[in-house]
Amino acid sequence: MAAEIVNPRSDSESRNGHKEPESGAEPLDSFDPAFALHRGGKMAVQATVPVRDKDDLSLAYTPGVAKVCSAIAEQPDLVHDYTWKSQVVAVVTDGTAVLGLGDIGPEASLPVMEGKAILFKQFGGVDAVPIALACTDVDEIVETVVRLAPSFGGVNLEDISAPRCFEIERRLQERLDIPVFHDDQHGTAVVSLAALRNAARLSGRTLGELRAVISGAGAAGVAIAKMLVEAGIGDVAVADRKGVVSRDRQDLTPIKAELASFTNKAGLSGTLESALAGADVFIGVSGGTVPESAVASMAEGAFVFAMANPDPEVHPEVAHKYAAVVATGRSDFPNQINNVLAFPGIFAGALQVRASRITEGMKLAAAEALASVVGDDLAADYVIPSPFDERVAPAVTAAVAAAARAEGVARR
Amino acid sequence: MAAEIVNPRSDSESRNGHKEPESGAEPLDSFDPAFALHRGGKMAVQATVPVRDKDDLSLAYTPGVAKVCSAIAEQPDLVHDYTWKSQVVAVVTDGTAVLGLGDIGPEASLPVMEGKAILFKQFGGVDAVPIALACTDVDEIVETVVRLAPSFGGVNLEDISAPRCFEIERRLQERLDIPVFHDDQHGTAVVSLAALRNAARLSGRTLGELRAVISGAGAAGVAIAKMLVEAGIGDVAVADRKGVVSRDRQDLTPIKAELASFTNKAGLSGTLESALAGADVFIGVSGGTVPESAVASMAEGAFVFAMANPDPEVHPEVAHKYAAVVATGRSDFPNQINNVLAFPGIFAGALQVRASRITEGMKLAAAEALASVVGDDLAADYVIPSPFDERVAPAVTAAVAAAARAEGVARR
Repeated sequence: MAAEIVNPRSDSESRNGHKEPESGAEPLDSFDPAFALHRGGKMAVQATVPVRDKDDLSLAYTPGVAKVCSAIAEQPDLVHDYTWKSQVVAVVTDGTAVLGLGDIGPEASLPVMEGKAILFKQFGGVDAVPIALACTDVDEIVETVVRLAPSFGGVNLEDISAPRCFEIERRLQERLDIPVFHDDQHGTAVVSLAALRNAARLSGRTLGELRAVISGAGAAGVAIAKMLVEAGIGDVAVADRKGVVSRDRQDLTPIKAELASFTNKAGLSGTLESALAGADVFIGVSGGTVPESAVASMAEGAFVFAMANPDPEVHPEVAHKYAAVVATGRSDFPNQINNVLAFPGIFAGALQVRASRITEGMKLAAAEALASVVGDDLAADYVIPSPFDERVAPAVTAAVAAAARAEGVARR
Repeated sequence: MAAEIVNPRSDSESRNGHKEPESGAEPLDSFDPAFALHRGGKMAVQATVPVRDKDDLSLAYTPGVAKVCSAIAEQPDLVHDYTWKSQVVAVVTDGTAVLGLGDIGPEASLPVMEGKAILFKQFGGVDAVPIALACTDVDEIVETVVRLAPSFGGVNLEDISAPRCFEIERRLQERLDIPVFHDDQHGTAVVSLAALRNAARLSGRTLGELRAVISGAGAAGVAIAKMLVEAGIGDVAVADRKGVVSRDRQDLTPIKAELASFTNKAGLSGTLESALAGADVFIGVSGGTVPESAVASMAEGAFVFAMANPDPEVHPEVAHKYAAVVATGRSDFPNQINNVLAFPGIFAGALQVRASRITEGMKLAAAEALASVVGDDLAADYVIPSPFDERVAPAVTAAVAAAARAEGVARR
């Protein structure tokens, strides 16, 4: 959940006129506007057909519905045409990595899942249902989601801790013929790549000329690294708390060993700070901090994407002293890297063509489309559009649908 | 699904001006109004809070949402106040006993589950989500629903074949602290009892004076028998395809052996027809037929509830020759026994007080409330209200909530 929205302090100040505690776990304040807004939840179900009289009932329910059921039983693809399956996504979590709060369990994760569901609807026109699971075992999660899948057109995995999230996503996608997408990985990667493409365009460079360093080897860091390599980055190194992930390290998990196999061509080792010397791009998804001296050691015209929330790895004002382009995860600075720019359109596009999965090509197309919305207005403080730019979701949707067709995973 | 709504023929005639095939499995006719209505499904999700700008987002999503999550993590009961959990029901099926169509699988069951969901909303103001499972093993269904339960305030089991439905419901209710309710059993039983209470009132008799015979020992028949006994019926015998369920039969399943233990005080055996001789009440939930001679052999002033759909066990015109009160499952005859009279209000009442389960007392209260709506308008052709009578759901809701408090299962 690195790359999601906004600064708690300026906002609560502007709403309340007083400064609020900065992080969770404070006592319940029923006057707090966040609690007031959440009372009774944030979503509802509605009928899209009339049920006013017995004629309506006889079509929407028995006996009319029996004909539709029979038709689907005979011709299973019709489920996409005659139910809401192909427009509804399950937002699935086990509550183990919720925002920066960690393993708070399924019930406590529900406000985030409802929030995600209404963003799906608001920005992508996609229906979504929160499914917070009372299990954390990988096998159990996989089996449970496979059993649920007939009711849904896609699965958005959310706030599941690494490295379990990687295996869960992979196994689910193998088992299911509907898209399975871990947004904490791929949403963040798509938006980061879009911003990086525009930053490169602004400076007249190609991705192949750039060397990037990522701080954080969790869900987001791993996915960003993969995507940058696929997009043709010159080189990318990823640092975890013990330093740069390199092939000579003996302490790597299987996921990090794989990461070492396709990143860090330069063979760097040692600290994050040392890797930043001469680097062109910093991407922070760690929640740690980066000293000013390390930013100062980067190449001229560097790009700094410090996406930790609420406190960026380096403050944007400091970064601006050395970097040509600065982005954060916060809405109160320019260039907000926000997942909501990607996931609604990605699912909308995939569902539109009934894609069986979301391929690398579809994600790359989403990043391209997102970058292209900026167009001729490109500037150092505008490498990525606003979440409220109404051109975003249609552009991403169309690009993802077209890529699905081109890659042969579309089913209509 | 015995007791659900309406006649396919008269209705499709009135809409189309031509007679339609009578049952499922006919070729897809895109001009059929049922297919036209079902295109794209029958339901959607909507946000109930604004997401127009970054201030909205900062409350409904990060960072504001984190405070709500933290509060729930510390004080789990708050999930009921600050999410939609306590107003949303999972409509769970495995697709094994869908309407009269049988085991058509989870995808083909979805139109019914969506229909159920919109009836929950329309009649009870309860949000509901279709969950059609890709498994039929009892253990797997139980485990899956237990894992889903954090996201829901109740579980409505639907169209799961007997006898599996009994064990699934029992085990789920043991494991969960939210209501679990198999509507095919209890919804039908509640509405049948309400109609029977009013029929008895009309004829100046008590339930204790009546001997009833039920045709059908599946989900609905077993549940109706239990409920009539709890309500104080004089005697009730249940017949399956092999005749009256009695203690001396050697071929009984465990469920039917239990049924034999608390029904049929008179010790009847033999055919359904023979049991009807001198009986006061016939309740049909079998889909079979009952010959006119058997109806003629019933006691004077008998009640005939022939609820098979679309073809009642005995045609109402025939039944009227001998019976004082006739009810069916169809909307084109008086006295329609329709589950939609019960389940929306039962869940609305249970959710309102956060009941941990739906007790026998709550179901009896629902039946009383439903019967009482008829009031002084009671007549032979009006022993049960119309599904569209707006007094029904509020009356059932209030009665169920009060009964939950009286029985000590309410949590607020």
